[in-house]
Amino acid sequence: MKKLIIVLLFFYSVAHAEDGYKLWLRYYPVDNMELLTSYQKKIPGYFVFGESETSKVIKNELQMALTGLLGQQATELTEPLKTGGLIIGTPSNSDFIKSNFDTDKLDDLGEEGYYISNISVKGASYILITANTDIGCLYGMFHFLRLLQTHKELENLSVSSKPKVKIRVLNHWDNLDRTVERGYAGFSIWDWHRLPDYIDPRYIDYARADASIGINGAVITNVNANALVLTPYYLEKIKALADIFRPYGVKMYLTARFSAPIEIGKLETADPLDPNVQKWWNEKIKEIYTYVPDFGGFLVKANSEGQPGPQNYNRTHADGANMLADALKPFNGVVMWRAFVYSNEEPVDRAKQAYNEFKPLDGQFRDNVLIQVKNGPIDFQPREPFHPLFGAMPKTPLMMEFQITQEYLGQATNLVYLSTMFKECLESDTYAKGKGSTVARVVDGSLDHHELSGMAGVSNIGNDRNWTGHTFGQSNWYAFGRLAWDHELTSDEIADEWIRMTFSNDKGVVKTIKDMMMASHEIVVKYMTPLGLHHIMGGGHHYGPAPWINTMPRADWNSVYYHKADENGIGFDRTETGSNALEQYYPEVREKFTSLKTCPDEYLLWFHHLSWDYKMRSGNTLWDELCYQYYKGVDSVVWMQNEWKSLKGKIDEERFDRVTMLLGIQKKEAIWWRNACLLYFQTFSKRPIPDSLEKPDKHLEYYKSLSFPYAPGIRPRW
Amino acid sequence: MKKLIIVLLFFYSVAHAEDGYKLWLRYYPVDNMELLTSYQKKIPGYFVFGESETSKVIKNELQMALTGLLGQQATELTEPLKTGGLIIGTPSNSDFIKSNFDTDKLDDLGEEGYYISNISVKGASYILITANTDIGCLYGMFHFLRLLQTHKELENLSVSSKPKVKIRVLNHWDNLDRTVERGYAGFSIWDWHRLPDYIDPRYIDYARADASIGINGAVITNVNANALVLTPYYLEKIKALADIFRPYGVKMYLTARFSAPIEIGKLETADPLDPNVQKWWNEKIKEIYTYVPDFGGFLVKANSEGQPGPQNYNRTHADGANMLADALKPFNGVVMWRAFVYSNEEPVDRAKQAYNEFKPLDGQFRDNVLIQVKNGPIDFQPREPFHPLFGAMPKTPLMMEFQITQEYLGQATNLVYLSTMFKECLESDTYAKGKGSTVARVVDGSLDHHELSGMAGVSNIGNDRNWTGHTFGQSNWYAFGRLAWDHELTSDEIADEWIRMTFSNDKGVVKTIKDMMMASHEIVVKYMTPLGLHHIMGGGHHYGPAPWINTMPRADWNSVYYHKADENGIGFDRTETGSNALEQYYPEVREKFTSLKTCPDEYLLWFHHLSWDYKMRSGNTLWDELCYQYYKGVDSVVWMQNEWKSLKGKIDEERFDRVTMLLGIQKKEAIWWRNACLLYFQTFSKRPIPDSLEKPDKHLEYYKSLSFPYAPGIRPRW
Repeated sequence: MKKLIIVLLFFYSVAHAEDGYKLWLRYYPVDNMELLTSYQKKIPGYFVFGESETSKVIKNELQMALTGLLGQQATELTEPLKTGGLIIGTPSNSDFIKSNFDTDKLDDLGEEGYYISNISVKGASYILITANTDIGCLYGMFHFLRLLQTHKELENLSVSSKPKVKIRVLNHWDNLDRTVERGYAGFSIWDWHRLPDYIDPRYIDYARADASIGINGAVITNVNANALVLTPYYLEKIKALADIFRPYGVKMYLTARFSAPIEIGKLETADPLDPNVQKWWNEKIKEIYTYVPDFGGFLVKANSEGQPGPQNYNRTHADGANMLADALKPFNGVVMWRAFVYSNEEPVDRAKQAYNEFKPLDGQFRDNVLIQVKNGPIDFQPREPFHPLFGAMPKTPLMMEFQITQEYLGQATNLVYLSTMFKECLESDTYAKGKGSTVARVVDGSLDHHELSGMAGVSNIGNDRNWTGHTFGQSNWYAFGRLAWDHELTSDEIADEWIRMTFSNDKGVVKTIKDMMMASHEIVVKYMTPLGLHHIMGGGHHYGPAPWINTMPRADWNSVYYHKADENGIGFDRTETGSNALEQYYPEVREKFTSLKTCPDEYLLWFHHLSWDYKMRSGNTLWDELCYQYYKGVDSVVWMQNEWKSLKGKIDEERFDRVTMLLGIQKKEAIWWRNACLLYFQTFSKRPIPDSLEKPDKHLEYYKSLSFPYAPGIRPRW
Repeated sequence: MKKLIIVLLFFYSVAHAEDGYKLWLRYYPVDNMELLTSYQKKIPGYFVFGESETSKVIKNELQMALTGLLGQQATELTEPLKTGGLIIGTPSNSDFIKSNFDTDKLDDLGEEGYYISNISVKGASYILITANTDIGCLYGMFHFLRLLQTHKELENLSVSSKPKVKIRVLNHWDNLDRTVERGYAGFSIWDWHRLPDYIDPRYIDYARADASIGINGAVITNVNANALVLTPYYLEKIKALADIFRPYGVKMYLTARFSAPIEIGKLETADPLDPNVQKWWNEKIKEIYTYVPDFGGFLVKANSEGQPGPQNYNRTHADGANMLADALKPFNGVVMWRAFVYSNEEPVDRAKQAYNEFKPLDGQFRDNVLIQVKNGPIDFQPREPFHPLFGAMPKTPLMMEFQITQEYLGQATNLVYLSTMFKECLESDTYAKGKGSTVARVVDGSLDHHELSGMAGVSNIGNDRNWTGHTFGQSNWYAFGRLAWDHELTSDEIADEWIRMTFSNDKGVVKTIKDMMMASHEIVVKYMTPLGLHHIMGGGHHYGPAPWINTMPRADWNSVYYHKADENGIGFDRTETGSNALEQYYPEVREKFTSLKTCPDEYLLWFHHLSWDYKMRSGNTLWDELCYQYYKGVDSVVWMQNEWKSLKGKIDEERFDRVTMLLGIQKKEAIWWRNACLLYFQTFSKRPIPDSLEKPDKHLEYYKSLSFPYAPGIRPRW
């Protein structure tokens, strides 16, 4: 037995490169011999009730997963079930389950929840996974596999789970030419040209991965939308993908270009109140549903960054959203309307604009419209306070938009576990209805009793073999899905699961990697934008530091707009003496951030302009503290390198080497950030970098001279 | 034993998806039990002499390959060698070899050749692979592995081989933003942004694959060149790749943008006779060699399709090439100067232009310049007669430029084995020095006694997991390499090797796939451009048929320029009564193509404009024959589909399914080609499609209405 396992592991490792393609669904043989034997005994075989496409998918996954995990060909049981084993089905497709399980336990689990338990029938022991729907069973199966993958006991199981948020979608900013806006993992996995007739197996593995973490929808086109995707030539391709996604419970959504009626409909206007425009959308949407009968609906970016929208016709965002919502309503489709807008020509603090535009519209949206709000008021910065719209529109379901792709967080080369950042936002208290009115409760609908709720993650997936470029990017896809299902999970729990499934169940390995992950977000903030600094990245591509940018045509496209460094000090005054963006928060929040006594260091320069000699809590002056933070950030990357080095030989060589190389790049980039920012800010502060710190070895002019015309994630320029 | 093999094969197939990544280097266990036992007996272990990077590479490859092929952990022998086994080394790094092998046999094998033989020393049997250099040993090792992979006997080995052509390079038309011009397999494998610190293991596998078929160089940037690649920021990245390629004998080449002295050198001119320009290139080239000490040299596209060149300064191609050649000379670098030019404003038959420009320059080039000539005089059409420059410039080494990527041959969706097309060209007789003056002999330098010789293949490689998009695209990379090494290999032999290594050694499987491959080029010609038609593809992207194009700004960018269909007939008169392009060939060739009695049907409309009622050899009128050819092409795709279907269960499911899907697309596209072309030509011929043939089910207007703004392989347009 043991020998077979060794042979088996050997050939797994010979034949099977650890290239990261399998994500957290590797299904390697359980390497704890005792546990393996106990699993093999408890799962002599499996039986899946039902004949739906989803039931077939469950069978396939189990066959593959159990064969891998248990190190022996998995056995599909035959009815009548007598031997014990794993049973999956719903009370409606299985008399066995109806007779032997208290189906009341499913009453509260809805269409996606599941229940896992041990049952005993006529002396035989079963592990039962059941739900109200096949999709619930699918989610339950992945939960069960996770127990095996993370080496959990299978005794006394009584797991019941259902999602806290209804719409859990990835937003793919993928273009029809396969470039990916803000994509750092290669190019789009959607091979439009060869669809619908060529089905890349990757589409199936994508849907499997989504389903395994409860993601139930995908907007597969860029928010900077192309109307062509709504034409029959592309709808046939969309249909092919939707057919693949469906058994996995992943719904198809598209982005709608607001001016599509003009561009592909040959109308002269896209005015949402124009009857011809409404008619065109009604017919277009009807047509889409002939291709995809369970089409989810539209995500729309309108009147922002040059995108067309209802304001082009002096209509409101509500007018635009409602027109689409009315057309989608008969088919149960929804509109996810983005609040990320800054079309105003006036120089209002950008942090205030979305709130100013959308709050007055609260109550004016149809009941199948969600407003999709970024976590913070600027744009996916390394750290932002929560967006003031959360809690400010009680009559409207607000969706969370997190960015999984690391546009401002080190792109494809920095190890940053984002769960702690997501949680920081979700746990923030808006005080909208008093203490405990967290962002999470706004988003999951519980605060304002909304039926509809949603969480969107801007995807970090590309056609790199390991999907996300950086191996640790996978943890962010994973964490997003897990949090969208249950925002009460801790970042620690999520990291623990992911590490065990992705790397190893070895305690030391788990601890080392988890320590790195849990610290990683704080580290990147330190060497990029400590103390509340923000938006001082390279122009356009957002790669690397460029706090000196001051020549962009709009004030709020420049770095200097955000840090406002001058001889007196640094920081953006958003109190009453400044832009007063703080007025958009509820009093408790406003006061906390307004008072220098209570404003956390993390947000200090986000809300305040302070003198270089301002005395920090640490006792340091602001300038010195800024220096220490930047240096600490770099030192912490070195700490990560050492932690990682200690894993040599304990995990596979291939991923060990890849991450080692990337940590090397991260260190270089951290030093680059530190030096460029401090040398630049020093031109204002006129103060020395504290003696104890090693001095930058290059001059500011060097850093300013760097240029990256082909940095990834932007549309190529010719 | 047998049981172990079965377990082993099972886990190979479970753990190891047949996604095509491993190309022809899969190293699966030999599944013929008798042969396996005999191999295991003959190769109890291996020993590699030498400590060079190349020797290490040989050891690694052997360890991996023998472990896989022989189904057991391979053993590295220890000195003194007593047990028999596989020995690899050179007489200069091994006394064992010097003492036990007649080293005279290496005299004629040069720096890349090798010798494989059985030797017996003190009663022990050895298989010896030896050469004058480590690189020779590497090539010998891959030859030996091929013997195992194709199930050859290892008795009485006496294999000696050396390349017929000196420079055997891939041309990657890869841009710095990772788009690939005419790339149909995803995007560039060169991840510029993360180089030099992040080394994708794919770079190593690329070099391994090249080395395994004797490719000894790579031009890794597009001929439509970007000067930035010559700046230090990129040269560091180039160096990292060159360091990876070096142990595999793959030399680094770059494309040189002729105007680089202006663009990155801040000069006001790029005039090749300007001393400052010469100085700039001298220094730039010196700088490149500090990064890559064995840099191979430049490939240049000048004064063609808008690229800058010496003619901008009223200098000749020789002036331009020689300037670079002089600068490269001290470092043993070469210039590969492309003859694909058509800068003339005058409406001269495009087929004549390269000859007109270059023939007069024969004898004016430095001895480290090669002129790189496409196989045919137009542009990589499905079938072209050989380029008239071959044989016309005896004082200049002419390199062959084949296109491996299927720009005009079905791109990533059509199964076309190109070896037969390559061979058709190589075997063509130019009659330059009488009968037997084949293109191959021009290219390999034997006809005109050139030291320097070369063959370039425009790569079909991208970041698709299987490298080439279509599984069968791999066979074209393979065939190019094999033919560049030895153009006397037959297409049948090459296909045989490739199929056995890539799919199976099963006789039936080999026969079925080989039949398909050997017929495939003729099939695609039939449904795209039968009887000598050419350049009637879609504009820009060259995807699909568009014989109706007549609105492009230059005459020779239009399809109608090439087919010249009118009420009287169809075809391009290139005889004396027409463009007289035939005058560029030697008399024997000219006469053969001029006379309708001897001009093969395959080239009929390339050289002649003939009436619709012209009586063909078949007895059919030209119009009817055209119809029969197009229909035959489609029918033959159906035949391929059926052949392939017969392989179900005999090869792995994954690749079976992928190719099945692609053959489905190929059938659709073949019908599209047939219908669109015949319906269009019918507007001139006014004749019916013969009754026996099924009529097109769509109208010409439908085909003309199709548009593909995001077809792959072109630079995205915004």
